[in-house]
Amino acid sequence: MDKINNFGDGTICRNMIDFSIENCAELPKVKGGKEMIIIGEKINGSIPVVAEAIARRDSEFIKERARIQTEAGATYIDCCASVPEAEEVETLKWMIDCIQEVSDLPISVDSPSADVIAQVFPYCKRPGVINSVSGEGDKIDKLFPLIADTKWEVICLLSDDSGIPKCAADRLKVFDSIIKKAEEYHISPSRLHIDPLVEMLCTSEDGIAMNVEVISTIRANYPSIHITAAVSNISFNLPVRKMVNLGFTVLAMNAGLDSAILDPTNRDMMGVIYATEALLGLDDYCMEYISAYREGIFGPKK
Amino acid sequence: MDKINNFGDGTICRNMIDFSIENCAELPKVKGGKEMIIIGEKINGSIPVVAEAIARRDSEFIKERARIQTEAGATYIDCCASVPEAEEVETLKWMIDCIQEVSDLPISVDSPSADVIAQVFPYCKRPGVINSVSGEGDKIDKLFPLIADTKWEVICLLSDDSGIPKCAADRLKVFDSIIKKAEEYHISPSRLHIDPLVEMLCTSEDGIAMNVEVISTIRANYPSIHITAAVSNISFNLPVRKMVNLGFTVLAMNAGLDSAILDPTNRDMMGVIYATEALLGLDDYCMEYISAYREGIFGPKK
Repeated sequence: MDKINNFGDGTICRNMIDFSIENCAELPKVKGGKEMIIIGEKINGSIPVVAEAIARRDSEFIKERARIQTEAGATYIDCCASVPEAEEVETLKWMIDCIQEVSDLPISVDSPSADVIAQVFPYCKRPGVINSVSGEGDKIDKLFPLIADTKWEVICLLSDDSGIPKCAADRLKVFDSIIKKAEEYHISPSRLHIDPLVEMLCTSEDGIAMNVEVISTIRANYPSIHITAAVSNISFNLPVRKMVNLGFTVLAMNAGLDSAILDPTNRDMMGVIYATEALLGLDDYCMEYISAYREGIFGPKK
Repeated sequence: MDKINNFGDGTICRNMIDFSIENCAELPKVKGGKEMIIIGEKINGSIPVVAEAIARRDSEFIKERARIQTEAGATYIDCCASVPEAEEVETLKWMIDCIQEVSDLPISVDSPSADVIAQVFPYCKRPGVINSVSGEGDKIDKLFPLIADTKWEVICLLSDDSGIPKCAADRLKVFDSIIKKAEEYHISPSRLHIDPLVEMLCTSEDGIAMNVEVISTIRANYPSIHITAAVSNISFNLPVRKMVNLGFTVLAMNAGLDSAILDPTNRDMMGVIYATEALLGLDDYCMEYISAYREGIFGPKK
């Protein structure tokens, strides 16, 4: 995949004294460090207003959601139809047309069916990400051969035929079997987005300790792999979900998360992500943070 | 110090299914886990509007700031005059009178002068926290004997006569000398709030790695000690400081921070703190998070 560069020309400014908010306008644009991958979640037929727009083939609605997520700083645009499988290929192709008409971002082709994904992903203009495979059934055996010699990336859920493993060790076993399959097909770790599967916090007795263990173990062993999460699952059934989503994202990034499926138009989420990169030492002198602010990615709307 | 209990009667409800936002009203109040200590920073003469209120002895202004911080869920109310030392004792006593008239919260007696603190702290109705001593000069030798046989707690900055040490190892040396002094006076670690000294992120090349090392080393060795920080220092000179302050607080709590000097009326900060406690496994089933939401500590204002 071609790396999306939201920012500027690579010039580095080392005059730190003038980095006050007042002086930001004069700051050269900079891109450095390791940037969080944002998979924009707003085009998904499981969201009622999106389902309605899909049903009436409202291309302007889909295009508008593609546009705002692009402007908000997404890296990929997720595209999920959530319609009966018989209609899914045609629906996804229509949705992809809408998105590609207004955005150059790569697409995250999102379907529960490996067969649907197999038919749809070659239709995209540029390599994106397959969403998703897991240890369940023959999804990997169907899709890994098809993407082996491409630049497509793939989200891999750590579940298998017995469901979602309850402990970190068992999720890591699923990871091991997935990484072996990837090696078989010469798909490098840098093309995998491992999703450790986030479950709701409100039923947990030890917070996100298990997720942190899975993420940090994988990160320690595979520095170039991507680790992703559907962030908002953590706050299911809780009030003011945004608070929990923000805290989770920071802690997961600290453990090694470098990719996330979320709403990029949530400006506070984007701001906290950029801030966390700087706090974790991935953004020297907060150059990316300041650039993103200047681009209008977060902060008060201008 | 008597622990402040913001919440309820200790009843525990284990019916997790009904924890949706709609059902919160029926949830019994619960207090459990380890609660973050919030030292409310809004009554400080270094804030221009507060300085003006102090100059004209506007007791209503001071009382209002005490009231809103109490309602917002502060654990202590910081009280700093920021006036010439000759007027400081009288000014602080007047401020303390204002605060104690409207709030039962203990006070954080805040002055750069150990002599001023020595004269003022016995004037408080109940034990609070001394803000602060450090390895500099004879502050510890003046104040530790005075609080030795009391319930007063004390904030200890990790600086000494040579200033603020540049590396973690040297800050930890200052910590060692402070903890030895505390032992000498039989002041238990649970009465100390260690402040590792937060510096601005915008001049850092490795984020907050050094703070994290200091905090986690102390936490590993002294489970009952408090570790605090003046949170907003981290975001000095950066735009949209709130983003950086939020991210810092989550990461510092993850390392072992359990106390913070901040604005408790910042509802997002309070929400993220409660969320982080739950994410870190310090709040079974998010009971404290939900209680704080019900108390109106965070979330949309009702």
